[in-house]
Amino acid sequence: MTKTYFPDVTQIPYVGTKDLKSGFGFHYYNADEEIGGKKMRDWLRFSVAYWHTFGQKLDDIFGDGTAIRPWDGLTGMDLAKARVDAAFEFYDKLGVDFFCFHDRDIAPEGDTLRETNKNIETITDMFVDYQKTSHMKVLWNTANMFTNPRFVAGAASSPFADVFAFAAAQVKEGLDTAKKVGAENYVFWGGREGYESLLNTDMKREQDHLGEFFHMAADYAKEIGYTGQLLLEPKPKEPMMHQYDFDAATTIAFMKEYGLDGTYKLNLEANHANLAGHTYQHEIRVARSAGLLGSLDANQGDKLIGWDLDQFPTNLYDTTLAMYEVVANGGLNHGGLNFDAKPRRSSFTPEDMFYAHIVGMDSFAAGLKVAVKLHEDRVFDDFIQDRYSSYDSGIGASIEAGKETFTSLNDYVIDKPQAALRAATKSGRWEELEDTLNHYIIETLH
Amino acid sequence: MTKTYFPDVTQIPYVGTKDLKSGFGFHYYNADEEIGGKKMRDWLRFSVAYWHTFGQKLDDIFGDGTAIRPWDGLTGMDLAKARVDAAFEFYDKLGVDFFCFHDRDIAPEGDTLRETNKNIETITDMFVDYQKTSHMKVLWNTANMFTNPRFVAGAASSPFADVFAFAAAQVKEGLDTAKKVGAENYVFWGGREGYESLLNTDMKREQDHLGEFFHMAADYAKEIGYTGQLLLEPKPKEPMMHQYDFDAATTIAFMKEYGLDGTYKLNLEANHANLAGHTYQHEIRVARSAGLLGSLDANQGDKLIGWDLDQFPTNLYDTTLAMYEVVANGGLNHGGLNFDAKPRRSSFTPEDMFYAHIVGMDSFAAGLKVAVKLHEDRVFDDFIQDRYSSYDSGIGASIEAGKETFTSLNDYVIDKPQAALRAATKSGRWEELEDTLNHYIIETLH
Amino acid sequence: MTKTYFPDVTQIPYVGTKDLKSGFGFHYYNADEEIGGKKMRDWLRFSVAYWHTFGQKLDDIFGDGTAIRPWDGLTGMDLAKARVDAAFEFYDKLGVDFFCFHDRDIAPEGDTLRETNKNIETITDMFVDYQKTSHMKVLWNTANMFTNPRFVAGAASSPFADVFAFAAAQVKEGLDTAKKVGAENYVFWGGREGYESLLNTDMKREQDHLGEFFHMAADYAKEIGYTGQLLLEPKPKEPMMHQYDFDAATTIAFMKEYGLDGTYKLNLEANHANLAGHTYQHEIRVARSAGLLGSLDANQGDKLIGWDLDQFPTNLYDTTLAMYEVVANGGLNHGGLNFDAKPRRSSFTPEDMFYAHIVGMDSFAAGLKVAVKLHEDRVFDDFIQDRYSSYDSGIGASIEAGKETFTSLNDYVIDKPQAALRAATKSGRWEELEDTLNHYIIETLH
Amino acid sequence: MTKTYFPDVTQIPYVGTKDLKSGFGFHYYNADEEIGGKKMRDWLRFSVAYWHTFGQKLDDIFGDGTAIRPWDGLTGMDLAKARVDAAFEFYDKLGVDFFCFHDRDIAPEGDTLRETNKNIETITDMFVDYQKTSHMKVLWNTANMFTNPRFVAGAASSPFADVFAFAAAQVKEGLDTAKKVGAENYVFWGGREGYESLLNTDMKREQDHLGEFFHMAADYAKEIGYTGQLLLEPKPKEPMMHQYDFDAATTIAFMKEYGLDGTYKLNLEANHANLAGHTYQHEIRVARSAGLLGSLDANQGDKLIGWDLDQFPTNLYDTTLAMYEVVANGGLNHGGLNFDAKPRRSSFTPEDMFYAHIVGMDSFAAGLKVAVKLHEDRVFDDFIQDRYSSYDSGIGASIEAGKETFTSLNDYVIDKPQAALRAATKSGRWEELEDTLNHYIIETLH
Repeated sequence: MTKTYFPDVTQIPYVGTKDLKSGFGFHYYNADEEIGGKKMRDWLRFSVAYWHTFGQKLDDIFGDGTAIRPWDGLTGMDLAKARVDAAFEFYDKLGVDFFCFHDRDIAPEGDTLRETNKNIETITDMFVDYQKTSHMKVLWNTANMFTNPRFVAGAASSPFADVFAFAAAQVKEGLDTAKKVGAENYVFWGGREGYESLLNTDMKREQDHLGEFFHMAADYAKEIGYTGQLLLEPKPKEPMMHQYDFDAATTIAFMKEYGLDGTYKLNLEANHANLAGHTYQHEIRVARSAGLLGSLDANQGDKLIGWDLDQFPTNLYDTTLAMYEVVANGGLNHGGLNFDAKPRRSSFTPEDMFYAHIVGMDSFAAGLKVAVKLHEDRVFDDFIQDRYSSYDSGIGASIEAGKETFTSLNDYVIDKPQAALRAATKSGRWEELEDTLNHYIIETLH
Repeated sequence: MTKTYFPDVTQIPYVGTKDLKSGFGFHYYNADEEIGGKKMRDWLRFSVAYWHTFGQKLDDIFGDGTAIRPWDGLTGMDLAKARVDAAFEFYDKLGVDFFCFHDRDIAPEGDTLRETNKNIETITDMFVDYQKTSHMKVLWNTANMFTNPRFVAGAASSPFADVFAFAAAQVKEGLDTAKKVGAENYVFWGGREGYESLLNTDMKREQDHLGEFFHMAADYAKEIGYTGQLLLEPKPKEPMMHQYDFDAATTIAFMKEYGLDGTYKLNLEANHANLAGHTYQHEIRVARSAGLLGSLDANQGDKLIGWDLDQFPTNLYDTTLAMYEVVANGGLNHGGLNFDAKPRRSSFTPEDMFYAHIVGMDSFAAGLKVAVKLHEDRVFDDFIQDRYSSYDSGIGASIEAGKETFTSLNDYVIDKPQAALRAATKSGRWEELEDTLNHYIIETLH
Repeated sequence: MTKTYFPDVTQIPYVGTKDLKSGFGFHYYNADEEIGGKKMRDWLRFSVAYWHTFGQKLDDIFGDGTAIRPWDGLTGMDLAKARVDAAFEFYDKLGVDFFCFHDRDIAPEGDTLRETNKNIETITDMFVDYQKTSHMKVLWNTANMFTNPRFVAGAASSPFADVFAFAAAQVKEGLDTAKKVGAENYVFWGGREGYESLLNTDMKREQDHLGEFFHMAADYAKEIGYTGQLLLEPKPKEPMMHQYDFDAATTIAFMKEYGLDGTYKLNLEANHANLAGHTYQHEIRVARSAGLLGSLDANQGDKLIGWDLDQFPTNLYDTTLAMYEVVANGGLNHGGLNFDAKPRRSSFTPEDMFYAHIVGMDSFAAGLKVAVKLHEDRVFDDFIQDRYSSYDSGIGASIEAGKETFTSLNDYVIDKPQAALRAATKSGRWEELEDTLNHYIIETLH
Repeated sequence: MTKTYFPDVTQIPYVGTKDLKSGFGFHYYNADEEIGGKKMRDWLRFSVAYWHTFGQKLDDIFGDGTAIRPWDGLTGMDLAKARVDAAFEFYDKLGVDFFCFHDRDIAPEGDTLRETNKNIETITDMFVDYQKTSHMKVLWNTANMFTNPRFVAGAASSPFADVFAFAAAQVKEGLDTAKKVGAENYVFWGGREGYESLLNTDMKREQDHLGEFFHMAADYAKEIGYTGQLLLEPKPKEPMMHQYDFDAATTIAFMKEYGLDGTYKLNLEANHANLAGHTYQHEIRVARSAGLLGSLDANQGDKLIGWDLDQFPTNLYDTTLAMYEVVANGGLNHGGLNFDAKPRRSSFTPEDMFYAHIVGMDSFAAGLKVAVKLHEDRVFDDFIQDRYSSYDSGIGASIEAGKETFTSLNDYVIDKPQAALRAATKSGRWEELEDTLNHYIIETLH
């Protein structure tokens, strides 16, 4: 029988909106409540990030870790095993269905890959055991190919062939692991796949290697019969000065160039979107329009801050608009909402681990509720349909049907006066629509 | 009898929160409702910006104006007079109590200042007439010393003495106007007071001129018996590469250097705060801590955008946290909330003028309601009081009382072990507090 | 016989580097000097931007135009014709070979497209006449589809079909013009092709329209036998909140999605690169790696400023690294360096028009000289070749040859100790390379 | 006799500009060469940062340290002592005159401050011994009050009084150390003095504590007879969301508010300037104008990157313009140029430690040479003098003499026509001045 790691916390209940004060209860997330034709848990598919929740010491570039954790004092495989027990207790008390992990989160590295893999397998055996008596599933696993100094100049895009080889072997183990634990997706975040300076970088050669690597990975997944979805995760910069998977569109360009758009989809993160100069909704829309939306990393940054904050998501505008896209997409299919987020360095107690997940889950549950209502009432859909209605008939329909040419359209407009053309445009009503959004957020949720 | 400019709009009513859809009605702003011991109108003191609402053509740097306005076609003083009539109709239908204006907004420039002033006085006579039969007051007026090419390199900080002289004379008329129309404040926004390049700029000499200018202004105000509050408005950049009144703290440093902090206070704008790398709440807090909070420009930007958007405020987090500071300040005294905001270029109809103000007024009214409730429940106040309680007694109280020295404090801690010091710190509970903020926003407003 | 517009300026001579002071002379640009196997004029293919140089009034969003120009006072077609005469005098005195123009720069808009086109044709007749007795060529022309209010919500991506039709007819005339004046390229800058808010935007439908539009344009060019290169110009934002051609990679993704990468290439601008979070060199490298480098807009911004400054290029690091890519590309083929730049608003005299172009031309000529020398000495090439040499033989060569799999690479590394893998990496020598770059800039140029 | 730590490096010679390639030699820095009336070493007063050079492991937020150092393998006080020996060998071979250190850089922390101080004193004894037989001086020392978890919410601004007390005792030891080693300055960088969220922060109370702390420090320095200059170092954010010493102007406002401007000056860093939205030159100019320029941290960032890169300075524009201000200031007096910079994580060899300092020293030496020449030739000085000459006589001189009022100036301009006022302005010649700057950089240095 295992130790209890969080003795002061019981299963987090749904308490509704009666109380204004926060506490160990969900105000909006009610896992089995049906909304928009599905249970909330099936729309949201919340996942706990193993690294932030069970590995994170809450250090930053200027400070040592502040986290106080019930496993403090343990080291090596003892620590690794204790964390598994703590994790499954945490999942259970929080009431989530999924978790995500990097290979190096769950077990310490040995001197050789063989030794490292042995450590990993000891831990994944424990995962598999826990899964037998629990509903917990793995949303995705991934390889940490950025912490070890060997990856200083990249993994698959490293200038050094032995590092490429090592990365290949590491992901091989990762895909074997994914199959073993039933991971619904396998993610590639290329934190070191980029450059520090173009003066010493052969960008084309590096990208060619990267393209080949992803083909090798897809081939190996097929070979072993791993059927989860493969995902690429964009980020513009940090730790590198410039990363190859800058944002959704850049990654799509890469996928198309190397013929990967049939095998891979995108895992999109809110904070990465902001660092690239986009909103989270924008990135999701781009992926959705291309049919490449895979999964989401649920966090937030602060647009006044130029590094990756990995805050827990709290902003209801962002969660509403993200879920607006997800609902429009009919859900995330194999994907889910992974909390790639850590409590603030000053939120260092075990209680903060729960508070942080509760605000994240409640904020997305609230966003889901508003998004469903906005779609049900066709608030923006009707406005948009009307705004583009000139393409539904007449010259617009003919354009969309591919029947017009520059010559025919020239004939159509050559003598139209300015006023007639101006009259063809309508107000975009930004202010009115933002006002309506406010009403929906407030009135749907209380 | 004047023409009706907005025949399709009647007095905007308070409709409450029954209907989710926007429309010509306030959901939260109920002018005479008491909250936190005052009427909403007295907390908020909403002001319409004459320039954006009656002068703005909705052009941008790449495009001509799109605005469709009931005075289109008029020019010169005919246009200027029509706008006054339209403005007072607009104020009345919207239900605000204040407006703000630049000298050059209200009347066209003549070839000499004498001619220009004559145009201004014709219009301010109309203002005074309207004020006799209306409750409308002037929150503040100001001088446009940035549009005319003579101000290419600054007004009071121009390298060219004649331009300084002109600026002085222009503000003289501005202060005369302020007295005439009973403006509660007079504002200085130094859009061109800054530099394009340090290679050709004598920053110290320019700032000395600027300091002298503000003293001359205060002297003249005293001389004529104008008793309104003088205000400086910070902005970091745009149109210049760098402006002297970069942000609240920079402006306070300037005020202290030139001995102006007894006569001037600050007018703070949300969008300017963001461009300087701050939140709006931060800027208001800085001014409030220094006892220099004067008035507020109520708008918003988009932190992903690097220029001044002057959007109408819609974000309830920003309005709540701004009003949180205002309530803590006991209100704005002579100041108010001026909508230094314009409808988007694509919101070009007269209806959008109303929608835009409605969302702005409702967003701040909602923010006020939440802020009052947060203070009444002492949600953050209690948390903060407890967090700093080690300064309320013992060594902390002794520090605050000025009784300790480096030597006495060294004796106090020299043998304390690390764990004891660590135990002196408590979690900042960022996630829990953000969660509580969400609940207050949603539950206070419905 | 035409008037002389710049009587105080004679042909700008090459004066070399004897004099430290600026003046009406080139220090580095010596048009017919051979370097790296070509004349400088053939590497650089400098082009004057008609709009900035002959249309720009030097206004900004807060101020009226300050420019003093020899054609001040003229209006309508008289103004348009005078500008042509002034332009060809300016080109001749400056010693450039190319110019670029928008349709709406060269002639005023009429009430109908038919009238507008007539104005354009009057002016392009003058161009053709001048070209008979001059070496001047058109680098590219383009359509201004952003100033007129009808384009408030886009041109080819407008929600309003009549606007799409008008844009088509406008570009039809543009392509006819390109053929008539022998333009080597035709450019599309989609300043309004983007969105202000996703709440009212059907992004996918807009992009589908845009894709169709570009196909129609290519079809029409083919139909009339116009053989110039078609170019798309990325920009991330401004005037819209988000533009579809965000950066090179995004535009490449779009081109691939809509099958346009065989017919279109890219026109890249320095200031736009920065606004998208990239260096200019990065954007050129991305396009070059994809075989899609078309032409360059030569300007600069200021990375502390969030809007499009369109400064004349002066930074020798930027010009050197841009030309480093151009030299590696073997030149720009049909492309050239167009000064999409305007003098600062405070540089308002006719002399500043010359000074501005001189610093731009000299900065790029200097950059060319350094870039050629860097390539000749193989300074970075040798470093890079050595850095990636592990891919030239052994396991690396086998990886590049496609002979390896995850399984074979796993066998290769599974038992390698950490130290061996670490030893496979080499220092990137950023500091040493930057030091060398400094030496090359200084020592090549004196 | 101590071990040799850098056996492959000899004293770095001055080699002049003959060779384009980098290597172990200075191209511009020739320590005893006289320029502008002083030796280069006396203008530049270069200092090595102990923490980056001897403590830095080259880790980043996503990766472990990559640095290969000759003391690898040692721990605790053995490591601390070995670093001292290596440091003085490094200083000697590099040929610098100063170094800077934090208390926690030089020796490990014990469980109590008493134990920690003992460790520090062991090491500073070694410093004092080395100084007896060496010319090395300490430019400044400082306290690390940001790494230890006790400082999670600040040091002197911590909400927890025991942490304030600890900080006081730590700085007491720091000032004792400063006196012991003869440090010319003592620096305060308040990395944790700021906030994460205003929801849980009493900003005014924290700043009051901070103000009191600086008074206590000045009192203690006086008490022990420490006569070095006390310096505050601004930084806008990172690690906190917002720091109180945001930039030079904000820190000046704080100093004036708390009466500290007579005892403290500023230590300014290039990368921090950029993160606050300023150029380095701007920050130095602000401090210089206020008579508060103390010392400089010599590094650089990348304006496209939103976190503190601490790159070695390589950009000749930045070093020239920084030295332009220093020369105008007559030098730095007690201050110097401290390389608060680390090699890139990929520049991990001991050789890179030398290359990095060489490029830093050469870049500033080059900047000095250009700056002196610019001042000698009065290039910008004459331009500026002429530009502001309207204040040297007539109405301008009368304004500066304080003889004018709004009324008298109104009389002066009331009837001037627009054209006359416009004629009073002159071109700012930005393009020409930038061109001249380029010529001076290139032609002064070869």
